[in-house]
Amino acid sequence: MRALGVLSRGELAQQLGYSRATVTGLVKDLLDRGIIHEVPSDHSTGGRRAKNLAFKADFASVLGVDMGATSVDIALANFRGDILLRHQEPIDVRDGPEPVLDRVVEIAQDLIRRAPGTGETLRSVGIGVPGPVDFLNGVLNVPPIMPGWERYPIRHKIQETFPHTTVVVDNDVNIMALGELRAGAGKGVDNFIFVKVGTGIGAGIVVGGEIYRGSTGSAGDIGHIQADRNGPVCHCGNIGCVEAMASGSALARQAVEAAQSGRSPILAQYLAAGAQLTAEHVGAAASAGDKAAMELIKTSGTLIGGVLAGVVNFFNPSLILIGGGVANIGTQFLATIRRGVLSRSLPLSTQHLRIDYSPMSEDAGVTGAVALALEHIFVGNL
Amino acid sequence: MRALGVLSRGELAQQLGYSRATVTGLVKDLLDRGIIHEVPSDHSTGGRRAKNLAFKADFASVLGVDMGATSVDIALANFRGDILLRHQEPIDVRDGPEPVLDRVVEIAQDLIRRAPGTGETLRSVGIGVPGPVDFLNGVLNVPPIMPGWERYPIRHKIQETFPHTTVVVDNDVNIMALGELRAGAGKGVDNFIFVKVGTGIGAGIVVGGEIYRGSTGSAGDIGHIQADRNGPVCHCGNIGCVEAMASGSALARQAVEAAQSGRSPILAQYLAAGAQLTAEHVGAAASAGDKAAMELIKTSGTLIGGVLAGVVNFFNPSLILIGGGVANIGTQFLATIRRGVLSRSLPLSTQHLRIDYSPMSEDAGVTGAVALALEHIFVGNL
Repeated sequence: MRALGVLSRGELAQQLGYSRATVTGLVKDLLDRGIIHEVPSDHSTGGRRAKNLAFKADFASVLGVDMGATSVDIALANFRGDILLRHQEPIDVRDGPEPVLDRVVEIAQDLIRRAPGTGETLRSVGIGVPGPVDFLNGVLNVPPIMPGWERYPIRHKIQETFPHTTVVVDNDVNIMALGELRAGAGKGVDNFIFVKVGTGIGAGIVVGGEIYRGSTGSAGDIGHIQADRNGPVCHCGNIGCVEAMASGSALARQAVEAAQSGRSPILAQYLAAGAQLTAEHVGAAASAGDKAAMELIKTSGTLIGGVLAGVVNFFNPSLILIGGGVANIGTQFLATIRRGVLSRSLPLSTQHLRIDYSPMSEDAGVTGAVALALEHIFVGNL
Repeated sequence: MRALGVLSRGELAQQLGYSRATVTGLVKDLLDRGIIHEVPSDHSTGGRRAKNLAFKADFASVLGVDMGATSVDIALANFRGDILLRHQEPIDVRDGPEPVLDRVVEIAQDLIRRAPGTGETLRSVGIGVPGPVDFLNGVLNVPPIMPGWERYPIRHKIQETFPHTTVVVDNDVNIMALGELRAGAGKGVDNFIFVKVGTGIGAGIVVGGEIYRGSTGSAGDIGHIQADRNGPVCHCGNIGCVEAMASGSALARQAVEAAQSGRSPILAQYLAAGAQLTAEHVGAAASAGDKAAMELIKTSGTLIGGVLAGVVNFFNPSLILIGGGVANIGTQFLATIRRGVLSRSLPLSTQHLRIDYSPMSEDAGVTGAVALALEHIFVGNL
């Protein structure tokens, strides 16, 4: 019903392949429990006004938390998934789990206070975190950029304040993929990949309309696929990982080099003006015609495209969505990624493949966190 | 019931989560149609002898056809999947679909003649072919090593002789993965990969206990992932594909070079004795202590391991099975593949990863073809 929206008993019976009598019984149960309610239909059938069925928006409320390395985005949503209130602010996950989660809980409490009734109906919390997650246990596994978070019991910490909720923790890229799957460009797409290019590089994988997490929850960790066997040493200890050569932090490092070596006059200007160079500066410089900046973007896109070509040969998706901070640096980046994929993949794998920027962009994470929470209202803790 | 084997009505009800009454009705229908029959239980309950339920072996028969580039392996099996008769012989797919499939049909008719009653009960035919398959239409898509087979209507050709059968065509590596999934090392494993290293290199992917074919049926085409950007040109037109550098045909070519250049005395002996060098000669030479042959195996295993490391980072499987002709060249090959994967993957992705030779080996294909046929008895043509 969540997927189908407002519909009649007859339509529901047809969708489920159950008899009308069975559906009538099931519907009565959902009505009695206050999960759905009847809404007037647009057209009457014969003399009688037909009633449609819809989710009751205030049956439950949920929290969606999209935690990045340097910011958090929290939404309070109703049972239909409509976002009631939302708050974003900078954080630093390196401060460790206690202060960061204390702040998350504070923000959540504030949102709940401002939306009367939601405190009583809060049923679940979905949280995306920027590191590899042991999904069943709701903890982070060896998070490279999150010292102090290793196996920290996030679920219990949140439940101290919200004891009657289900708390579900997932990787940030998985919730972005989930956001696009439920409410964005991934709606109705069976097999696709959401690639986040930010400080690091990672992918969320959808197989058969479900998030695929792999055997130990680390599926989609494409940042450490080798892009160049003669490349630099990555923080993971391996050589030439695509993350070490083409991520936002790699672009920032390369931007400083280009500024200091005199190859990029525009990046040198930004640096002289006191800016801490980021991938966005590279994008701005490239837009202003800076050749060195354009070259950096091209190299990054080509390396990412090369890695994705291997992923495409293996996984044969019909859609790749590119999101994350670096997705804002201009269309040339997307164009070189596309070219990199097409030049290295087999025609059979790419004939129906679309590669686009994530249209939800910065909303994908929090939308996915809300979806994650909604999907676990009736499941309970994993 | 196929997965669970012999069981009682009570066990069936428990497994399905249906009421005893519902199951009794369903069971009666299956008994009436002759799909299952009652078999005596080992233990009686109270005074009454309890009856178990089992598939009726002679309810249907199926054909499984594992077609390689140079040989075909055909099995006639009963409804339980027991192989009744089996026949293998050399073929050459380059002869084109008509003569090859005529011969397949001839062999099948001969098997059926030798197993009385199977002609009447033949319900489906599962066929694995060595090329990319459009699974829904049952045809080959741009098969590189099968000229003349492009979109040839295999299904209709088989149905000319066996008009009342369902014919299902799949890629050869997919049916090998299916064989291991249903009856081999993949039983009960949610997410695994079967990698065939033969003339070419390809993978069959299992996600959530099902064969994953991708959006256009080309998933698992790992042979054309780049192993070395400075490598040789592949027959696909790209540079440094792992298939061009590490497959059975690459090893054969490298063996001739090693023999002719004088680097490998043992391979030179084989060549002088008139042998057409293959990967198996390289394996034999390495076992006899030939350093150049050992080096060839090590290079091939390392390149395959490097490509699989990327696959492991992306897909996070719990098992990789290596099969195909080159899997017979000795344990050193497997050891270098393992080393290549472990040295390039993240620890989180490999902590529960097993990499082994396929224990079913040459039986995986035909076993999978039989399983494919059995799974489509009630589905009908796709």
